[in-house]
Amino acid sequence: MKLKARYVLTLNENFDIIENGEIIFEDKILKIGKNLPECENTIDLGDHSVLMPALINTHTHLEFSSNKTSLEYGDFIVWLNSVIENREELFVSCKGECFKKAIEEMKKSGVCAFGEISSTGDDLRYLKYSPLKVVYFNEIIGTNPGAVDMLYQDFLARLEESKKYQNEKFKIGISIHSPYSVHPILMDKVINIAKTHDYPIQAHFMESKAERRWLDEGEGEFKLFFEKHFKNAKPLIKPIEFIEKFKNTNTTFIHCVYAKDEELEKISEIDGKIAHCPVSNRLLNVGLLDLEKVKNNKIKYSVATDGLSSNYSLNLFKEIRAALLMHTTLHPKYLAKDLLKSVTINAAKALDLNNGSLEKGKDADIIAFKLPSEVKNLDNLPLQIILHTNEVDKMYINGEEII
Amino acid sequence: MKLKARYVLTLNENFDIIENGEIIFEDKILKIGKNLPECENTIDLGDHSVLMPALINTHTHLEFSSNKTSLEYGDFIVWLNSVIENREELFVSCKGECFKKAIEEMKKSGVCAFGEISSTGDDLRYLKYSPLKVVYFNEIIGTNPGAVDMLYQDFLARLEESKKYQNEKFKIGISIHSPYSVHPILMDKVINIAKTHDYPIQAHFMESKAERRWLDEGEGEFKLFFEKHFKNAKPLIKPIEFIEKFKNTNTTFIHCVYAKDEELEKISEIDGKIAHCPVSNRLLNVGLLDLEKVKNNKIKYSVATDGLSSNYSLNLFKEIRAALLMHTTLHPKYLAKDLLKSVTINAAKALDLNNGSLEKGKDADIIAFKLPSEVKNLDNLPLQIILHTNEVDKMYINGEEII
Repeated sequence: MKLKARYVLTLNENFDIIENGEIIFEDKILKIGKNLPECENTIDLGDHSVLMPALINTHTHLEFSSNKTSLEYGDFIVWLNSVIENREELFVSCKGECFKKAIEEMKKSGVCAFGEISSTGDDLRYLKYSPLKVVYFNEIIGTNPGAVDMLYQDFLARLEESKKYQNEKFKIGISIHSPYSVHPILMDKVINIAKTHDYPIQAHFMESKAERRWLDEGEGEFKLFFEKHFKNAKPLIKPIEFIEKFKNTNTTFIHCVYAKDEELEKISEIDGKIAHCPVSNRLLNVGLLDLEKVKNNKIKYSVATDGLSSNYSLNLFKEIRAALLMHTTLHPKYLAKDLLKSVTINAAKALDLNNGSLEKGKDADIIAFKLPSEVKNLDNLPLQIILHTNEVDKMYINGEEII
Repeated sequence: MKLKARYVLTLNENFDIIENGEIIFEDKILKIGKNLPECENTIDLGDHSVLMPALINTHTHLEFSSNKTSLEYGDFIVWLNSVIENREELFVSCKGECFKKAIEEMKKSGVCAFGEISSTGDDLRYLKYSPLKVVYFNEIIGTNPGAVDMLYQDFLARLEESKKYQNEKFKIGISIHSPYSVHPILMDKVINIAKTHDYPIQAHFMESKAERRWLDEGEGEFKLFFEKHFKNAKPLIKPIEFIEKFKNTNTTFIHCVYAKDEELEKISEIDGKIAHCPVSNRLLNVGLLDLEKVKNNKIKYSVATDGLSSNYSLNLFKEIRAALLMHTTLHPKYLAKDLLKSVTINAAKALDLNNGSLEKGKDADIIAFKLPSEVKNLDNLPLQIILHTNEVDKMYINGEEII
């Protein structure tokens, strides 16, 4: 079929914007440009309409979607304790409807695919037939050397179970919770699996000052935390060694707010990615990722919502609008352009998906919506899109109309 | 009548929150507390319900409400030029429906009163019967000494016209556009009128680096701007003298992003207020007001949306949520409390209104809405309110049900 729109954002390497552009697609994109051949099934989206690649939310924890006002915000460790305290209750109260609602919110905001961190595997039943594409990151967590085997067996069982559902819209990934919460033996084992099967990896990294202090000095709030919960009071790996373990994989490091320059350099060196969750970081009061440093290190970043455990919304347009407002030292016009990339082409690369830009051969994952009025100078288009868009009018996934 | 709610935020001096609280009111608040006398007309707002003073948006420019994507964001002077270029067109295209829609958006977000800057007086016809309370700031602007008399006469005519509509819901104020755009002779004249009639005053102050440089050195982007538009290339007043002129008035200084320490001290000394418009400041890329300094100087600040000339929304709950996210160095829990004050009691004081808190004798300007779930620790209530509230379920103005 063919779609025509006033503004077509390709998100290709040149960030080409085609005015009065057209796109022809089946399950893949066949042609994109102006004045394309006629097509029986053509929709002209009309005045002020925008076509662009559907969005991708690289990092979520849908298991926590039942949280509204239960968890304590304002401090990372206070929040973490409240997560541990409320975890079972939140998990139990998030069943079918709760997952459905979470996915629905993403869908309305134009999200065609998301990266889901699964800590238990219990979410598999709700996600295996998701209308959106899922990259299902089986997560490993645990530092107790005596439990390593058991944890690994549990992980393998979850991984095998999830592999049964692999298809065009359901892919497998691996998550290593963080450098402070996973035993290095486990890290190596699961990273090897990822290498063997080319699974993308995600790992939380340097989310809080407490993590920084713990890994650098074995001191601070995390010391008390570990003594209280796990009787384990020694950091098991240096941050830079942690990053090095992911060489020759496709790994996204989540947060990185407290990453040092040499760590960002190392992430860049191994071609690692970063996922930036600005609202989550703000609610846990850990500060703001230095995006300028990330860019200067030529690291591709995605913006993601994180879970409803540390956000009030999974709407990805609202998340990038928040990012636009929060990074007050960056020029809004140019940041807007980067933010659109962060939730499309960059995110696709992080999740190993064949979408994120409107180019021939890519999956036909496309959204359409309208701006309230004309944008004369195309330079302003990304910013105006981010300011005015909350939900999309249409979404196609693999060429199929989903909205 | 009587309202009962799970959480009643009084916004009184102690920031008292009454659990399972009640309020009895006619046009004024009669009683507030727990287990009040029975009342024939009683509504129990139910689980997770919140009662609090209706919000007040101290600073808007509704004349510009037709702007969606016309004005250029990202740079103050570029924006100002685009305002000058598009001003007539925007004014002409904002008539009855446009004002109505703007007011409707504020109303839905629980705004009972707003401060409107009127540059032409043409908006009077649309605002004189507003369902919300209006403080109508007749604005003076102009630096050309030859035009001072004419401008003053025009101002007086607008002022007299607006005075005809004064009533319980329509009050008069005076606006001096800014230290760089008004001749000191005009400043003195209109400030005297404000003193005589006890009108509140608003003045833009130190919104941009360009303004800072112009007033300090007579140089920079504003020099080019003045030479281009007004052939007037000398700043006419020092910032500190400007502030001093407002001694013994109730003046709110809008923006103050580039105010120096001694200027904030001076504002504090004359008991001046500040209106903070974070989204507007961000879109014009002028940076972020240092709220910590404002607080350290004991200056009461309100948060306001500014006009749709530099915002995508007039929803005041969304504006304070943006503020909460943007001030990444301030603790979200305590900032949330301040932000609720900023749009209620602080805003009421800035506009000389008898509302902004739920206390006996105050106007019965009240909003009600529901949180998605229980908040166990009342310390977290302000933050959770700001994260989860977009629109209100009920609003009373002078005791009359408006929503």
